[in-house]
Parts: sequence; C-alpha cells; structure tokens
Amino acid sequence: MKNIPVIMTIFGGSGDLAHRKLYPALFNLFEQGLIKDNFAVIGTARRPWSHEYLREQVIDAVHENDKNVDENHLKQFASHFYYQSHDVTNTEHYQAIKDLANDLDSRYSAQGNRIFYMAMAPRFFGTIATHINDQKLIGSGFNRIVVEKPFGRDFASASELNEEIKASFSEDSVYRIDHYLGKEMIQNILPMRLSNPLIKNIWSGEFIKNVQVTLAENLGVEARGGYYETSGALRDMVQNHIFQIITLLAMGEPTALSSEAIHAKKQELLDSMIIPSADEVKKAFVRAQYAGTDDTFGYLQEPNVDPDSKTETFAAGKVKFTKGPLANVPIYFRTGKKMREKKNRIDIVLKHMNNLYGQAHSNNITIIIDPKSEIYFTINGKRISEPGIRRENLAYEFSDYENSLVPDGYERLLHDVFVGDQTNFTHWSELAKFWEFIDAVEAAWQSENESVEKLIQYPQGKLGPKQASEIFESPTERWIYE
Amino acid sequence: MKNIPVIMTIFGGSGDLAHRKLYPALFNLFEQGLIKDNFAVIGTARRPWSHEYLREQVIDAVHENDKNVDENHLKQFASHFYYQSHDVTNTEHYQAIKDLANDLDSRYSAQGNRIFYMAMAPRFFGTIATHINDQKLIGSGFNRIVVEKPFGRDFASASELNEEIKASFSEDSVYRIDHYLGKEMIQNILPMRLSNPLIKNIWSGEFIKNVQVTLAENLGVEARGGYYETSGALRDMVQNHIFQIITLLAMGEPTALSSEAIHAKKQELLDSMIIPSADEVKKAFVRAQYAGTDDTFGYLQEPNVDPDSKTETFAAGKVKFTKGPLANVPIYFRTGKKMREKKNRIDIVLKHMNNLYGQAHSNNITIIIDPKSEIYFTINGKRISEPGIRRENLAYEFSDYENSLVPDGYERLLHDVFVGDQTNFTHWSELAKFWEFIDAVEAAWQSENESVEKLIQYPQGKLGPKQASEIFESPTERWIYE
Repeated sequence: MKNIPVIMTIFGGSGDLAHRKLYPALFNLFEQGLIKDNFAVIGTARRPWSHEYLREQVIDAVHENDKNVDENHLKQFASHFYYQSHDVTNTEHYQAIKDLANDLDSRYSAQGNRIFYMAMAPRFFGTIATHINDQKLIGSGFNRIVVEKPFGRDFASASELNEEIKASFSEDSVYRIDHYLGKEMIQNILPMRLSNPLIKNIWSGEFIKNVQVTLAENLGVEARGGYYETSGALRDMVQNHIFQIITLLAMGEPTALSSEAIHAKKQELLDSMIIPSADEVKKAFVRAQYAGTDDTFGYLQEPNVDPDSKTETFAAGKVKFTKGPLANVPIYFRTGKKMREKKNRIDIVLKHMNNLYGQAHSNNITIIIDPKSEIYFTINGKRISEPGIRRENLAYEFSDYENSLVPDGYERLLHDVFVGDQTNFTHWSELAKFWEFIDAVEAAWQSENESVEKLIQYPQGKLGPKQASEIFESPTERWIYE
Repeated sequence: MKNIPVIMTIFGGSGDLAHRKLYPALFNLFEQGLIKDNFAVIGTARRPWSHEYLREQVIDAVHENDKNVDENHLKQFASHFYYQSHDVTNTEHYQAIKDLANDLDSRYSAQGNRIFYMAMAPRFFGTIATHINDQKLIGSGFNRIVVEKPFGRDFASASELNEEIKASFSEDSVYRIDHYLGKEMIQNILPMRLSNPLIKNIWSGEFIKNVQVTLAENLGVEARGGYYETSGALRDMVQNHIFQIITLLAMGEPTALSSEAIHAKKQELLDSMIIPSADEVKKAFVRAQYAGTDDTFGYLQEPNVDPDSKTETFAAGKVKFTKGPLANVPIYFRTGKKMREKKNRIDIVLKHMNNLYGQAHSNNITIIIDPKSEIYFTINGKRISEPGIRRENLAYEFSDYENSLVPDGYERLLHDVFVGDQTNFTHWSELAKFWEFIDAVEAAWQSENESVEKLIQYPQGKLGPKQASEIFESPTERWIYE
C-alpha cells in the first residue's frame, strides 16, 4: 500500500468520536502501511493537554478497540501525535496550529499535504472553516477537509456553511462524512445490483412494487436530549443515511466506478426527486415520539427536552423519482428510537404475479445492514405435504469470521480521504437536494404544529406508531419487516 | 380424505419393492384414511405363502419403515391383505386371482374397482398384461394398471408392451411409475418456476446459458450385474428420470394444473426434441465404466458381467428442444455409478453479464434433489476488504423437521393412483419420444462398438471421466458441480 505523506489536524481531538473511531481507524491504516513514516496528527481541543497525554489517550483508545495489538507498533504510531490546545474563535491558536503543522511537515517530510478533520460540535464548523481560510492554514500540497454530520440544519444553514468551506476548499477537497456509506452492505448495494443478472434484470418499475428502508434503533436519546431537540429523526437520520441509501438503490448505472461517474448518476437521479407538497406530507409522512412506560421516560420526559416538544423521534415517509430504474416506484422509509431492536434493513418488494398455484407471497430481496450483514431472497416453493405455496427465504448471512473481516466504516472512509477517493462522501449538490426535500417536509409539519397539541406517542419496543402503516399508496402494500 | 374403495393386486407381493416401499406407503395412506374399510390387497408371487404369512410380512415391512406405529391400526390394516400364489404363465392362477378379487369386492364393497400393480421383473409385464385381458380380470368399476420401470428396453419392445397393456387398459388407466416424479424437489420444479417472478422472468434462452442435470450414485451395480448388463446408465437413468426432470425444466407453462394440461405442454415440448445424429452423439455424448481399485472391482470384474462388456455405468450427453422457454438452450446431463457421493442436482447457469466490477461468476440457480432438499441462488457480492467481486450462495436448505415431513415418493404416487391423478406418471407418447432419443444414441454407440476395444474407464469416487467435460458447446461452459 502506498504510503501517504500528510499532516492531519483533528478538531475535537479529545472528543468521543476521535477516541472511539478515529484513533483506532488511523492505527489500523498505520498497520496496513497507508500512513507510515511521513504523517503526523495534531489533536486540538480546549483542554490543556500535553503531547504525551494525547499519546496516552491514543494508546488507550486503540487498546479499547483491540486487545491484540503490537505494543511497539502502537508506541511508534502514537509518537506521531501532537497536541495543540485550541479555542475555536482564537486566531492565535490557529497560528499555533499552522506553525506546528509546518514544523511537523519538515520533520516528517509531509510534502505540504494537509487534512483537516471537523470532529467537534457542528455549530463550530463554520467558524473553524473561516479561520482556516483567514489564517491561511492551507498547505502547499493537497488540502482536504472532512466534515462530520450534520452539515447544516436546513438548506439555508447548510448553504452558508458550504460557502465558508468553499473559501479555502474546492468541492473536490471536501469530504462530507456519512458513516453509513462505509458500511459493508451499503457498499454492497451497487455491486449486487450491477453484477447479477438475477437482480439487475428485475430492478425496474416493471417488477418492483415498492422499496422499504428501515433504520430502527433500540436506544432512546440517552443523554443527548438537548442536542436532539435541535434535530429530530428527519434531520438526524433521513436527511443523510436514508437518503444516501435510497440514492444507491434508485440511481441509474454509472458509466464507470469513478467518483465522478457515480456522482453524475446520483445527481441525475436526485434532480428528478419529487419534492412533496404539504398535502402529500399529510398523506404519506408520519412523525411521532416514543411514549413512556412505568419504568422509563417517554421522549417528553427526557432530560433537557421541552415537555411540549414537537421534535419527532420517529419519522416515516415516501420518496419518488421521475428518472432512474425505479422511476415512479414508491420508496418508503421509517426510522425511530426506542424501537423493537437495532435493525437496519432494505426490502425490495416485487409485484404480485398471477400464477397457477393461487395465493403466492411477493418475491422480496432483503438486505440486512445491521446488526449483521445478510442478504436474502424470499421466494415461493411448494408446501411439503399439502397443495399450495409457501414462503422460503434463501439467505446468505455473513459468518462470524466474515463479519470479523469487515473494517469499521471510519477506517474505510479515512482510507478514502487519504487516497483522495470521494465516492463514498456526499457531494454538495446531492446534499442540497436532500435539504430541499427535508425543508419541504419540515415546513409542512411546522405549519401543522399550531393545530397539533401533541405528536403521536408510540409504544416503546415496537416498530413505531400504527399510522406508519397507513402511508402506502395502495391497500395491497404493507411493511415487509413487521 | 375421501375413502377409495378398491381391490389392489400386487404382482410381486413377496418382492423387495413391495416390502420396502409399497406396504409402508399403503399403511400411511390407510392411516390418512384414503383407504379404510373398502379395500383389500392381493399379494401374488410364486412361493406358497398363506394369507397369514403375507400379513406378518406386511407388519414387518411397516415396522422396518417406522417404529412408532399404532399396533392395533397396523393389525387392522394387515387384515386387508390376502395371498394368492401365482405363476405368471398359468391361466388358472389368474382365474384364482379373479375369483378372490370378486369375493373380496363383495366382502369389502369395493364397487368393482381394480388396481393392478406390476412390481415384478420387467420381462413378465407383457405376459401379465395379456393374461389380465384374456382371463378378464377387469372389474366393473375403475381399472388401473401401475407399471414399474423399465417400460421396455427400446422403442420397439416398449411399443409391444404398450400394445399388450392397451388390450385391457386405455391410456388414462395406465400409471407408468417413475419414482423421481414423487420426489419433493422434482415436484417443486413447476411451482418454483411459475410462482416466482425472480425465477420465471429469467427462464428463457435470453438469460439461461445452459442447464445441467446430475444424478450421481456412489454405489456400484452390487449384486445386480446380470440385470445391469441388459440395461446400462442410459436406459436405467436417462430414459426415465433424467428425461422427466428435463421435461419439467423445459416445458412451457401449462394452461392449468390438470394432468391433461401438463401432459399437453410436455408433449408439445417433446415433439420438438432434437434427435441426435451419430455425429452429434460422437461429439456431445460420453459413455464409460467405473475402473477397479486395489480393493474393489471395476465394472468389468463384477459378478455376472461380461469381461468384454460395452455396457456403460456412466453416461453424459446433451438434449435440445426447438420449442418451449428453453428452446435451443443446451441441457447437459450426466449420471453414473461409483461416483463421489450420492447427489442428484440441477444447475441452471445464467449467461455472463458484462459489469463494471470485472470478472464475475455466472449467476446460478441450483436445486438439490438428494440427499437433502435444497435450493440456492449463486450471486455476486463485493469482496469484504479488497476490491472486486466474490460468490455468495443464498441457500434454502430443508430443516431436519421439514425433511421429516416429506412423504416417500411411493406414498405420493400410490395416492395419485388411488385418486386417479396421472400428473406424475409418464404418458405413453412422452415415453415414446424418450425411447426415440435413447434408441438414436444406442444405435450410434452400437455402430462404434466394432472399433472400440474397451469403454473409457473412470476412477471411482470422482464425477466420471474427464471426457464428460468436453461435451460443452462452447469453451466458456463447464460443470458447475465439480
């Protein structure tokens, strides 16, 4: 593997994301030789840590992720880490980062390459981007910025943030992370669609009745009620993960596997996305909050949540395109907290086919994303000892061994940032369409809020409110996962 | 279940087939109530058994098949059995059977219904059929004859036998048994093909490159070398089982599930079967014999086998039709003794599809008939931690419980004889086409025999001779099961 020379600055180096995800992922890439002698990492945060303390944190983080590491390698890896305490509004601190980066660049021969990783609270992204520009932190080699979600909270704020970033970074240097795009089965969608005649051949409105995307969480908002109040399920899960999944399912076949060719087809699809009217939102979208039980809080009782909050912890709805292989095929989605189990899955539901054997189930293709990678076809076969048809699931479930081979999404995505592959990141023009859709739904909900006293309260441990089963276009449709 | 009144005569009542298959199957049908108070069975054979001795044999046979039977039921069941010793050429014996049948008909109110089951060595079938006619064994109700395989040893002898049967039985009263048609996954072929859009949609020469039928046995000829010398793999396995499987795979969709509608489509297909020329046989057919090892006989050393025998224990070849959904698609088959394992399977091989991911395996649909019922789709998915495509098998394997529910083929087929359903039996006009094909291959081989000193000898424990891999039409084809 080619060794990438680079100085990487992580804004939020003392944070949870850096500790749980970035440091272990960087170590794995170090072990693979992608970063070796010519890299250094500057961790920044407000606290007054020393280089040595950061390195201990890095070592701890890697240990927590994997007990069986080579301690010498790990020590060597950690020696590439430097700490710079940093207040996001203090221009002198940016100068200090800049000087340190230049120093390290000489020491490690990093060829002027810079990666800036925004791993902090999103409200700081714009300020940091502006300072990177004003204080000229840009190196003489490649310069890339990695931005965690959420990228704005609506089209206007996302647009503003994008302008701030654009001052220093062209679009092909901006890596908007959606860690779902690093997941095994998400990355498997295009290969499965495009390399299998059995699948490719039915991937059209002629055969597919609808598509269903479910991202179910079993946890509630936990300690993040305050943040969640500014977001909600639609912004937190639909605007990014669900839209990215839907895009991969519905886009046309790209002319090549390059980032540009894939983006071109995604954009072509998204430009044909139907933005729902307020009426359509009323009919085909549902929002709700989890109710309390004798033992647990409902959303409205969670700490730092407004008891009159209209923030949804569950959202279901429908997306349609006028172009692409699934043109005019309804794509339903739902996501929620405190649901039955953690389960992320995609169900492709084929149209009913008249047949000689009477009542037959639909054929389905199901892709399980989490908690275990799995794909199965649901087909019909004869009943064993009586006439008629029964359902059979032809499954391919990853073995424990195969699951152990699956790299963490962050490792994959960081790898892509190092090698400059934007395929699995969100282009601004895609994001703009996502926000346009979300804004339309939010606006419709906002205008309903005056007449709504309380959102639908759904029971914990199920799959959301029963109203989510009423969004279908025809009475013959239903959730396959129920 | 409707109770069928009938007197059934089993020619070969002391034989292995009756003991292992027919008596247990009849008991199961008795337990289900299909035959109850109004049936009796006459077992015939040369030995001078008593009724009582036959009943003991029946009880033993059922016990050997299933330890957990209701002994009272079994005793009651056995009381319906009667023995008549019988020499196939002795007309008086037929009179005795006739008188006994008439007696039993009165006693059991069998309404003049008769079933005659030919469970003897095939050389007696014609004689028995002629005597049934001459001695007027036909009852006043329905009369059905069940004929075990082989039905003739070429078109001429089969035709002669058919004429002898026709003297007393019209075609819709003749049940030519092929017990493969009673197997679960064989009976599943049409339901799977016709009730699943995922399968039906690719079932054509547009998508299917070839079809492969493998019936592999791990045993040799055992004690049956003498009989086998008069048959060979082509007559013993291809003429019946393999052709029936191929017919189910390649026939068009019937207009209904009736025996008539299914036969009509089978016949339409078979009338378009291409009979191979001697040249074609040279190119696309292989015959061979299993070789000996240090420890075991080769075929030529088996007892009662001519050391210069040209009888094949392995045959491979190709069948093509000009009509039906698989028109012009090569359908390859192979069958042999002393192969690696007992494995009966069907592989549907889809055409290669160009795709962006480079080398991809073909998509296949595989149906495992024996030893366990299974179906799987072979598709492509992404490799986990490197670029490219890997193969994934999406499998539905019957659980042990499901396998325990599968009735024995004979139980199913006897049921069909009782209720008068000919769907899973071979019509004479189908059989005639099978023999026409087999005769052409046999004739080509016969004419080669002068110049062939010894057939190809294939090693035991493999999948036949390497020459079987050279029958394909194109160099991109190969056996999927290897």
